[in-house]
Amino acid sequence: MEKLKALTRLEESLAKLPSVGRRSAERMAYAMLNMDEEDLNEFSDAVLNLKKSIHFCPICGFLAEEDECEICKDSTRDTSVLMVVSYPKDVIAFENAESYNGLYHVLNGVISLSKGGSVEELNIASLIKRIDEGNFQEVVIATNPTIEGETTALYIAKLISDKVKTITRLAYGLPMGGNLEYTDALTLAKAVEGRRKI
Amino acid sequence: MEKLKALTRLEESLAKLPSVGRRSAERMAYAMLNMDEEDLNEFSDAVLNLKKSIHFCPICGFLAEEDECEICKDSTRDTSVLMVVSYPKDVIAFENAESYNGLYHVLNGVISLSKGGSVEELNIASLIKRIDEGNFQEVVIATNPTIEGETTALYIAKLISDKVKTITRLAYGLPMGGNLEYTDALTLAKAVEGRRKI
Repeated sequence: MEKLKALTRLEESLAKLPSVGRRSAERMAYAMLNMDEEDLNEFSDAVLNLKKSIHFCPICGFLAEEDECEICKDSTRDTSVLMVVSYPKDVIAFENAESYNGLYHVLNGVISLSKGGSVEELNIASLIKRIDEGNFQEVVIATNPTIEGETTALYIAKLISDKVKTITRLAYGLPMGGNLEYTDALTLAKAVEGRRKI
Repeated sequence: MEKLKALTRLEESLAKLPSVGRRSAERMAYAMLNMDEEDLNEFSDAVLNLKKSIHFCPICGFLAEEDECEICKDSTRDTSVLMVVSYPKDVIAFENAESYNGLYHVLNGVISLSKGGSVEELNIASLIKRIDEGNFQEVVIATNPTIEGETTALYIAKLISDKVKTITRLAYGLPMGGNLEYTDALTLAKAVEGRRKI
């Protein structure tokens, strides 16, 4: 028996989602057959609407639905601190943590030596321009604690070293709520290295 | 920070898929931001197209893209045997197993005493009519080996008992490739009960 074309077609789209394999896609497509017409129309519209209504903020590179993103427009933010992150989802993580009230700059990528370090694709030129024209007292480099994140952090730090008074990096150490026993050696070493007086 | 409306909207649709929770939906919606415009348009169209191009076969209740389903239209099938299943996906399972070449009748549900046994919603009237007007030598009742499947099987068997010469039920026993040690007691009992000479 040949497979129903409309199902196969939908499965192919679903299989492009993260951690959705061929079998999950089949199960999802099949389940969607039992959804209301209305739900399916809404689903289809929501997908179509996504890129139409979301773009990158021209100032910081974060996601925006209006001309500028909500953070750049927010007059209550501390404009003396700039945090440089790799991806929009990092901004979302910090905002959810409610631990930072400065501005952001989203590179939209990392410098990867293995995947070909395409520095030009990152929002670095706009970062330099923003620092030159702005009046930031501190730039916090908040790339991931990975090799690529480190490479990117060092590269950025070098570029802006004579433009900003204070350049900082996020602290390394034990994750809160974690267990010493299950913490990897590198993290333990970083936690010892960065130990502070109490 | 308020969440981007277009993302939230898409997440709500994605969360309606089977085994997709709020966190997975967030991750999926976020990943879709990085998809090509073309892929998103195709995704949206595939969802919209699903119900428009698939309907139930008026003869057997299976899924069809043309007037009748591929199985009812197929002149090479054995028209003397009819297999009664609960859902279209059961037909797909048997077709994938390539172990049956007769026709099907899809009830599109089971009789559920707990959820209210809505016998009228099942394709039973069409089954009776089809058996009365057809010339089936055997009807195989292939509902699931669950309480609801059993109830449904017995109900159907009783209804058609004087209309068909042979009414059969799928064999119960050990699943192939399984391990005696991990087989539940009920299955083991059924396997002993149904033992055959070798």
